[in-house]
Amino acid sequence: MSLYQAPLNDIQFNLFDVWQLDQYWQQQPQLQDLIEADTAKAILEEAAKICEQQLAPFSQAADQRGAQLTDGKVTLPEHYYSAYQSLSEGGWTGLSGDPEYGGMGMPKALSMMVDEMLCSADIAFSLYPGLTAGACVALLQHADDATKALYLPKLYSGEWSGTMCLTEAHAGSDLGIMRTTAKPAADGSYQISGSKIFITAGEHDLTRNIIHLVLAKLPDAPAGSKGISLFLVPKFLLNANGEPAERNNVSVGSIEHKMGINGSATCVLNFDGATGYLIGEPHRGLACMFTMMNYERLSMGSQGLGAAERAYQNALAYAKDRLQGRTVGRDPNKADPILGHPDVRRMLLNIKTLNEAGRTFATWVASLLDKAKYDNCKLSADRANLLTPITKAFMTDRGLDACVNAQQVFGGHGYIKEWGMEQLVRDVRIAQIYEGTNGIQALDFALRKVAADQGGVLQQLLTEIHTEVSTKPNAAAELLLTAVVQLQDCVAAQLAKDTTQQALDACDLLDAAGYVLYGYMWYKNLAALDSEKHSADFIAAKQGAAHWYLRRVMPKAQALFTQLGADGSAALQLTDEQF
Amino acid sequence: MSLYQAPLNDIQFNLFDVWQLDQYWQQQPQLQDLIEADTAKAILEEAAKICEQQLAPFSQAADQRGAQLTDGKVTLPEHYYSAYQSLSEGGWTGLSGDPEYGGMGMPKALSMMVDEMLCSADIAFSLYPGLTAGACVALLQHADDATKALYLPKLYSGEWSGTMCLTEAHAGSDLGIMRTTAKPAADGSYQISGSKIFITAGEHDLTRNIIHLVLAKLPDAPAGSKGISLFLVPKFLLNANGEPAERNNVSVGSIEHKMGINGSATCVLNFDGATGYLIGEPHRGLACMFTMMNYERLSMGSQGLGAAERAYQNALAYAKDRLQGRTVGRDPNKADPILGHPDVRRMLLNIKTLNEAGRTFATWVASLLDKAKYDNCKLSADRANLLTPITKAFMTDRGLDACVNAQQVFGGHGYIKEWGMEQLVRDVRIAQIYEGTNGIQALDFALRKVAADQGGVLQQLLTEIHTEVSTKPNAAAELLLTAVVQLQDCVAAQLAKDTTQQALDACDLLDAAGYVLYGYMWYKNLAALDSEKHSADFIAAKQGAAHWYLRRVMPKAQALFTQLGADGSAALQLTDEQF
Repeated sequence: MSLYQAPLNDIQFNLFDVWQLDQYWQQQPQLQDLIEADTAKAILEEAAKICEQQLAPFSQAADQRGAQLTDGKVTLPEHYYSAYQSLSEGGWTGLSGDPEYGGMGMPKALSMMVDEMLCSADIAFSLYPGLTAGACVALLQHADDATKALYLPKLYSGEWSGTMCLTEAHAGSDLGIMRTTAKPAADGSYQISGSKIFITAGEHDLTRNIIHLVLAKLPDAPAGSKGISLFLVPKFLLNANGEPAERNNVSVGSIEHKMGINGSATCVLNFDGATGYLIGEPHRGLACMFTMMNYERLSMGSQGLGAAERAYQNALAYAKDRLQGRTVGRDPNKADPILGHPDVRRMLLNIKTLNEAGRTFATWVASLLDKAKYDNCKLSADRANLLTPITKAFMTDRGLDACVNAQQVFGGHGYIKEWGMEQLVRDVRIAQIYEGTNGIQALDFALRKVAADQGGVLQQLLTEIHTEVSTKPNAAAELLLTAVVQLQDCVAAQLAKDTTQQALDACDLLDAAGYVLYGYMWYKNLAALDSEKHSADFIAAKQGAAHWYLRRVMPKAQALFTQLGADGSAALQLTDEQF
Repeated sequence: MSLYQAPLNDIQFNLFDVWQLDQYWQQQPQLQDLIEADTAKAILEEAAKICEQQLAPFSQAADQRGAQLTDGKVTLPEHYYSAYQSLSEGGWTGLSGDPEYGGMGMPKALSMMVDEMLCSADIAFSLYPGLTAGACVALLQHADDATKALYLPKLYSGEWSGTMCLTEAHAGSDLGIMRTTAKPAADGSYQISGSKIFITAGEHDLTRNIIHLVLAKLPDAPAGSKGISLFLVPKFLLNANGEPAERNNVSVGSIEHKMGINGSATCVLNFDGATGYLIGEPHRGLACMFTMMNYERLSMGSQGLGAAERAYQNALAYAKDRLQGRTVGRDPNKADPILGHPDVRRMLLNIKTLNEAGRTFATWVASLLDKAKYDNCKLSADRANLLTPITKAFMTDRGLDACVNAQQVFGGHGYIKEWGMEQLVRDVRIAQIYEGTNGIQALDFALRKVAADQGGVLQQLLTEIHTEVSTKPNAAAELLLTAVVQLQDCVAAQLAKDTTQQALDACDLLDAAGYVLYGYMWYKNLAALDSEKHSADFIAAKQGAAHWYLRRVMPKAQALFTQLGADGSAALQLTDEQF
């Protein structure tokens, strides 16, 4: 039985002490009446209750039962219905939604913390409200007012849910070659025909309606990805009162049998002349969908962190409880808790320091999105764009590492289903794959965000960090400054390479940036410590963790710098037959 | 559907070209009449057939069906029975067994290659013959002649199978605190009572009898691990003709539900005054069991490599087949096979270079064991002991990396059960855990094999490698020599640390040694290339792979050297509450 207690203490430390977002919120006209520190705390506590009590205790049962397809209907694990109802009643689906349409209007930094908790409790479940929130973001930004008024309130309230229909069997991330078509109808709507795969929450009975956002090609579409348009396709068409009525021609063909997140219905959806409504401009669907995908990509980071946090808590509890072996230097006549073993402490600290840095990083990126939105700040928007692929890829790669390490702490019991650790490994694994594999994230980072920009946004950020750390040094400063300079040099060297080489190096570059920026997160953690506000244990724990991270984890960036500096041409010169 | 073709070409390259073992075999009086290159090739081809035709195509079905316990009986996937029969009839279980008792007497270097193929085909299945072979090794070395004559022929022939019963619920690797007891009976046998968990192949109906090797404590046993004795406990007691007759008092309590290797029956075994026979001296059971465990630990390496090899083959086939995206610099108007994407090539080369180095490493360690056995060579025995924990831990850690990376090549399809990639990840994960977790392997390496020896065997090996590479340099020499010197310095620095620090550093040290020694394996691969024997493609592939490994993989050792050189005291100073 795998336990979970929301890390409210560290979440609040990040929101209020590290990034001082309560002060920021109070300065924003759109936020100052909605939220202050106490409201945020209350929201987080309520979310924690749902996660701890209604989801986490049953996540193993959800894994075993899974989503099931019978006679064209998908049913979900029993407790999903009551938990979803709690979420809906609490307005959680619309937590960061626009108040004009019934959303709660909370900043992304807050909703990202709630995301983490939901993912700790059950990644599979989190996808139902998660996809809905993503669909709302796309509609809010690209739909016309009438459509927004018709759909957003029901989506924010959780009465209806949303999906994102991109992938086709022959076209994964290569959307340009998709085949789904949209034929204009006389009434201004479109008839959508085609088959989509891997549609998360594509069919289920949690909600009265499902609003599919579907990419398809108009008859006059230019070739490739510039000919894709976005359509809203409801499972049930709305009647004159805006209520779900006639069944639309979209049906579930099958659901996938997967390694994990079994509670999530991953559907093949068949659109047979289904009625759809164009969202945004014709042929501009990909841009619209990217609004949603960027949102989802941040959520992926929460999946990595959420699973890793739960994995850590369980591994730590096990390490305190399990008596095994004599710890070096302790009483030789009795078995000690394995937490006494240096190697177990090493594994736990590796997880802990990555998790806590990850939480600080997630809060940072979310706060940049908030500043982009509320202050219309281009610099923040550019930085959020720069850091989004790191959030998605680095946080999920480290999430798998963490879950595997935490499973390892359990020894043989980690491999047995009963203990719940192997499920965390299986569940978190998907986060490295969907919403654009981590390899695609790395290409986005290295080519679009760094190379296309001549390194501008990244190098400026690194220069600022260097100045900040040099000006206000703390215990993290010396090692961090060295690493920042190494990263700057590495980025400069990458810019001189050709595109193929940059593509080859992309994953290593993203990882190197991730390890160094996490070092900066530890700098920020240390800078926020205050003996008047924080307990001696909290301070000592943060100091010890920072000490460990900078010396025993961050050096991984050095290997990556060396790799990036070395000739990788062999990968490009081998013929296909020589692989 | 996950495919598999035994890599006979590379296996033979390792046996005959890299390590020239056919020449060695011809020099050994015990081997020269048994085996030459052609015999070995024939044996490998036969083993390949069984693996490719009788096991690999059905490994997914075995995963789905699993071992099942009904009314105290364990049944296995249907095709396991016929495949096992083929193995028995071919004498495979006794491949490296003593000819005096009906074994085939083949060298370990050959049987290790067969192990790899079996593990590629189905790790879960491989455990049934694998545990039997391990039990035979222990019996051959520690049992008296009568016992050997009674049991070994039936085990070698595959008619009976073996197990290894160590773990108890409260005592995993901490065997000293085990509670199973052995009470002397009047007839010289013992009554064994207690409960053992995680017993691989503990109960099944593949064979007519199961020979359990059980650790238990005699009434006068000293405390701790020095009071453990080894007993042979047959499932069916033998009658006067040496045939299985009366059922012994050992029964299966339950089987575990695991993350993977579902075809392997992992049993709770209850011994209720079961009749057992002492093997070896009283209280010396742990030493006897270690004979078996060392054997098993090498097999774990084969599991890591075997799964990784199959993962690579499938990822490569998928990368050649899957059309997706425009490769940088190729025709922009049509989708290319993803093998054209630099990042996919990077992933594949990371896997390929670790796999091929792993195969060379496995052959090396096995050949050292052969030299220890046939030449009674202490140096070879010491080196095999030194390298055994690296074989177990590094090869399985890299095995998981490889399977995860290969799964990643598949994108979303990697997460779907149908494609078989997620099973490889689930199956290989156990190899990092059982037979002593990789953390325990690292302690064995760093404390017992390196520190207790004042670094002697390792440093001498590194000095020899340095001399060899300096004297006969090839394209790998320059980078390898630098890494060898760094490792030598690192080991010297580790020796100056106290035991607690050495324990904290153990995993990183083992990994660093692994990456550098794999660099030496690439040196050996290059040194063995011969344009008169090998095709131009084979040579170019090896050269390209070596180039990649030394520049883009081996630098990981540098990060580890930096980590090991940095202060890790935070891990030891944090209180339990501060974790």
